[in-house]
Amino acid sequence: MGLLEETLEQIVPKDSKWETRAVDRLERLTMPHWALGRVMDLARSLAGMTRSLDPRVDRKVMIVMAGDHGVTAEGVSLYPAEVTAQMVRNFAAGGAGINALAKVCGARLVVVNMGVNGDLTDLVQEGHILDRSIRSGTGNIAQGPAMSRDEAVRCVEAGLEITLGFGDRVDVLGTGDMGIGNTTPSTAIAAVLTGVSVEKLVGRGTGIGDEQLAHKVGVIQQALEVNRPDSRDGLDVLARVGGFEIGGIAGVILGAARLKKPVVIDGFISTAGALIASRLAPQSVDYMVAGHQSVEPGHRVMLAELGKRPLLDLDLRLGEGTGAALAMPILDAAAGVLTQVSTFEEAAVSGAIP
Amino acid sequence: MGLLEETLEQIVPKDSKWETRAVDRLERLTMPHWALGRVMDLARSLAGMTRSLDPRVDRKVMIVMAGDHGVTAEGVSLYPAEVTAQMVRNFAAGGAGINALAKVCGARLVVVNMGVNGDLTDLVQEGHILDRSIRSGTGNIAQGPAMSRDEAVRCVEAGLEITLGFGDRVDVLGTGDMGIGNTTPSTAIAAVLTGVSVEKLVGRGTGIGDEQLAHKVGVIQQALEVNRPDSRDGLDVLARVGGFEIGGIAGVILGAARLKKPVVIDGFISTAGALIASRLAPQSVDYMVAGHQSVEPGHRVMLAELGKRPLLDLDLRLGEGTGAALAMPILDAAAGVLTQVSTFEEAAVSGAIP
Repeated sequence: MGLLEETLEQIVPKDSKWETRAVDRLERLTMPHWALGRVMDLARSLAGMTRSLDPRVDRKVMIVMAGDHGVTAEGVSLYPAEVTAQMVRNFAAGGAGINALAKVCGARLVVVNMGVNGDLTDLVQEGHILDRSIRSGTGNIAQGPAMSRDEAVRCVEAGLEITLGFGDRVDVLGTGDMGIGNTTPSTAIAAVLTGVSVEKLVGRGTGIGDEQLAHKVGVIQQALEVNRPDSRDGLDVLARVGGFEIGGIAGVILGAARLKKPVVIDGFISTAGALIASRLAPQSVDYMVAGHQSVEPGHRVMLAELGKRPLLDLDLRLGEGTGAALAMPILDAAAGVLTQVSTFEEAAVSGAIP
Repeated sequence: MGLLEETLEQIVPKDSKWETRAVDRLERLTMPHWALGRVMDLARSLAGMTRSLDPRVDRKVMIVMAGDHGVTAEGVSLYPAEVTAQMVRNFAAGGAGINALAKVCGARLVVVNMGVNGDLTDLVQEGHILDRSIRSGTGNIAQGPAMSRDEAVRCVEAGLEITLGFGDRVDVLGTGDMGIGNTTPSTAIAAVLTGVSVEKLVGRGTGIGDEQLAHKVGVIQQALEVNRPDSRDGLDVLARVGGFEIGGIAGVILGAARLKKPVVIDGFISTAGALIASRLAPQSVDYMVAGHQSVEPGHRVMLAELGKRPLLDLDLRLGEGTGAALAMPILDAAAGVLTQVSTFEEAAVSGAIP
């Protein structure tokens, strides 16, 4: 049995008994009932995920998956495909948005080459990035499948392996992506797995204009017609219209669920990975925390499909895990509320007037 | 000339030249244009406030102002008035929500007795709180003014003095409140300064039911009729229908503006203080950062009056500065983006396809 199959068998839902215990304490804290709103909702979830009233959240790892996309040949992005490799170098040099934001939340940044078109050997040798490259970019989904089913399993297993490797040395995971053109496969995945039309889901990605947007819709519709992915089969969707980094992200999420740890999902691309993960293991959804609401229109639909309300809404559309990193301090807050705030009895504060 | 008058003369707007310089750099960062959305808006503002492209944000001080309210005699709150003093003891002991959340964002917590009904001498002597008590609770605004005009000046000056005392040893200020019954004066202030009716502004505060809510509307309307505050005169509004802690918060905000430093405004009560500050010095609004959108219905109207969009929306209704503390990491992120992210040229990353 492979790592993926084995993992799918081991994922169990969060534990409602621990949620109930957490609620019992949270309702007695020295504040009006549930006055910290969604921070308390999150505290309850953390207790259920980790089976603890004292969930650790300090050791954070942000995993950024990078890969290239054959579909860039169709002119779907504002940026040349070479930017994927250049940005991986930027991550390694510490000069990208995610470098700054991972530092703010105290997360360790792990960058993974899942299939970048470009020689990154020096970065691997110097320990800046991990090499799990499937190959140098997916096939052009407007013409055929992104990858084989075997490659799809391999990219999910790469994410799994890295995550499980952290085991008990990580408390919170975060997902991020880099891949010029990857809003195109992500929109295709969203269309297949939510049933909503491409026109309603598609967005401007890195900033294309109206004409290019109409072209992008056509390319995605063609990709769906050429490939006819099976919506009941997450691996088939990933293989036909996905991407290596999207599969890697799905693997990170499944790994977090197997470890019973929270995983903060970034924006549009990460949520495409989360949708794939949810089809492979519906109970993995219990461990997902939606970091933010992306500007990309389809993101709202995808989060609704997962039943998630995002923590932040800051008009972000960068990816890289930046929205997940920005949300991480809210997990610190949730754990702090659960563990550090006194109850009315403990603090000798009077309760509500009966 | 008193400290307040002197301060009002010294408050100047943020500097648009520095904002332009910040935008020039932010637009060349290795990401699609303005892809970090509101984090970049905030980075621009920070540059304009601090006159710097390298704004420090690490030394954070959260000032929590506490005071009691004579209007609690009208039965407007779910909690007995003694809870104000008990919660100040809870702050001193480290057991309240704000203690946990100030720790998450690395803020120093300063608790000020602005006029609590109860003996807190031991906490002052032990250095847990500052004593700037005007007197042990305001007058009942349903019967007469909250305080004299002289007391109004004194409570604003107390907040000013504490803030200016930090001078160059603080980078970011945050405001918080504690005072059983204080959504009642805050709603009255909001009604006077926004012109919106009490019915549209009023909310459940700590959690009152329908009947008590209708009663609260009546009490606030009575307070406005009895006192007839002059909406053009912030000090008159504070004196007639305000609170000592609300005046203290206005002082903190004016102090931050005089220091040319950002001040993160918490929820409903803090925003009432911000409205008072904005009437005393309209340019102080430039230094305000709205931390979050409170559940209290009037908060949206008050933020609109200030022209502010809140950073967070997490269903909070606690006060104490908790929403400001939760928002503070976003200031770290904004400064990090401005100072640590490379431009396309610096990182040798290709720009958009022309």
